[in-house]
Amino acid sequence: MLSAGAGQNAANRMKLALIGVGLIGGSFAKALSAAGKVERIVGFDTDTAALKRAVELGVIDEAAASPTDAGDGADLVMIAVPVGSIAGVFRQIAPGLSETAIVTDVGSTKASVIEAARSELGSAFSRFVPGHPIAGSDRSGIEESRADLFDDAIYVSTANEQTQRAALQQVEELWRAIGCRIERMSPDEHDRVFAAVSHLPHVLAYALVAHISAQPDAQRKFAMAGPGFGDMTRIAGSNPALWADICRANRQALAVELRNFRALLDVWQRAVETGEQSSLRQFFESATTVKRAIDARNYLSRS
Amino acid sequence: MLSAGAGQNAANRMKLALIGVGLIGGSFAKALSAAGKVERIVGFDTDTAALKRAVELGVIDEAAASPTDAGDGADLVMIAVPVGSIAGVFRQIAPGLSETAIVTDVGSTKASVIEAARSELGSAFSRFVPGHPIAGSDRSGIEESRADLFDDAIYVSTANEQTQRAALQQVEELWRAIGCRIERMSPDEHDRVFAAVSHLPHVLAYALVAHISAQPDAQRKFAMAGPGFGDMTRIAGSNPALWADICRANRQALAVELRNFRALLDVWQRAVETGEQSSLRQFFESATTVKRAIDARNYLSRS
Repeated sequence: MLSAGAGQNAANRMKLALIGVGLIGGSFAKALSAAGKVERIVGFDTDTAALKRAVELGVIDEAAASPTDAGDGADLVMIAVPVGSIAGVFRQIAPGLSETAIVTDVGSTKASVIEAARSELGSAFSRFVPGHPIAGSDRSGIEESRADLFDDAIYVSTANEQTQRAALQQVEELWRAIGCRIERMSPDEHDRVFAAVSHLPHVLAYALVAHISAQPDAQRKFAMAGPGFGDMTRIAGSNPALWADICRANRQALAVELRNFRALLDVWQRAVETGEQSSLRQFFESATTVKRAIDARNYLSRS
Repeated sequence: MLSAGAGQNAANRMKLALIGVGLIGGSFAKALSAAGKVERIVGFDTDTAALKRAVELGVIDEAAASPTDAGDGADLVMIAVPVGSIAGVFRQIAPGLSETAIVTDVGSTKASVIEAARSELGSAFSRFVPGHPIAGSDRSGIEESRADLFDDAIYVSTANEQTQRAALQQVEELWRAIGCRIERMSPDEHDRVFAAVSHLPHVLAYALVAHISAQPDAQRKFAMAGPGFGDMTRIAGSNPALWADICRANRQALAVELRNFRALLDVWQRAVETGEQSSLRQFFESATTVKRAIDARNYLSRS
């Protein structure tokens, strides 16, 4: 589909360059291999131990010496590195891309990544398909990668008016083939949505851990924490460099969420301080009603 | 142990009054029955359907018409109702308690419960053993109760100088028999510790759901939420009346936590707004280091 090979099989299979062999990149490679969509995978990672391990595990066929080398002759270049490092990868691969190579990413923020692609990819910008699969966990690294990570996940596709339709369709088709449902949205909508449901929750989880660890009896407190605390702070075990990058890249939308969340917390705090029972009950009850509706997948916005 | 029965078996078995047949009360009854520690269980609940179901499921032997009736002749009265309702239960059971009956509770806050016991229980106050098992989930109700809920859990025992040592030891021994490790602390320490590791996290989870549900595109946002959001907000599905009560009962300690958490969030927000990379990295990295140490159970406070 992506490469025009000689045989019937090769016609549907491509040469993939995988830049970043972590949880997401490794799982994407494994899933595509399992689906028979890929002929050869050349990988690159700045973490040379991870790169070596990816070869040993058979996730990639070959380790390249640079993103430029990996991208050379690839039908598809998948960039699966922290968002703060994507611009540098664009710069390195741009000179060696073929006239038909498609470039895509899995970055957790989209506006800043697209801006970087526009600056760095030159004429290949129209073959850049920006996207974000909603999968992953607090675990990271090639050892945690799984062919079924994207089963039943959402893939958010954030193409723009300059994105070639054929490139967009080909990339979406790959994600569909490995189990994703496709949701299209604008980069700005993407960044606002994920500032609310992903970036803010991550900040709260990390900040909660930091808040308690700053207390003199932190050890005693952590030792007493129950299963709810474990659930609530699970995401604070995620890759911190990745999350610092995401918060920086999406700082405008995240700052809005933080401001509004803090304003709401002020209201709750006043109700706590006064011990006003009816307000407290109402706060908790309406939130629980929403949470249960979300879990039952029948939430309807009241506005 | 608690009752001086005729036979060998009866000597170690008691008559239990269970006030509140929810997740915790039901699980306590099931666990004690499984451990052979109880001869007969008389239950009461203001939710008559739950009370009927507790009899049907064999969790209790008999449904009483009031807390007073349930407590009449009991060796041990376990009060497993939301903290806001405990004072009323004390008032109802006090007149009918035998001279040797032990009273205990599982309330999530302790200072206010002990205060209520002191006012309401009269001479039985010295036989009141306040405690809090660190177990449970976002699920509630008798149907969710399990004999193994307390396996490997912590039971926090918050006796005071007036608590009879024999009563304290007997209650702690029961919790030990059903799988708990015992931690003793003062009621004030308990309330400070759980304001930090339980009550604040619950407020944040509920407030996060409320914050997003107030936005015009809430439906779209919730539909896009990934597994991290699900983990983070799981506890917002907990019984809202229970949590409103807990926040009210422990409002002083919780208000301190909220104030300090918001001050920390201010610092993080400034780093987000300025996009200051080194601060963001440091925030995330130090929190992740702590979280991983907690999970590995080797966290050592730095102060």
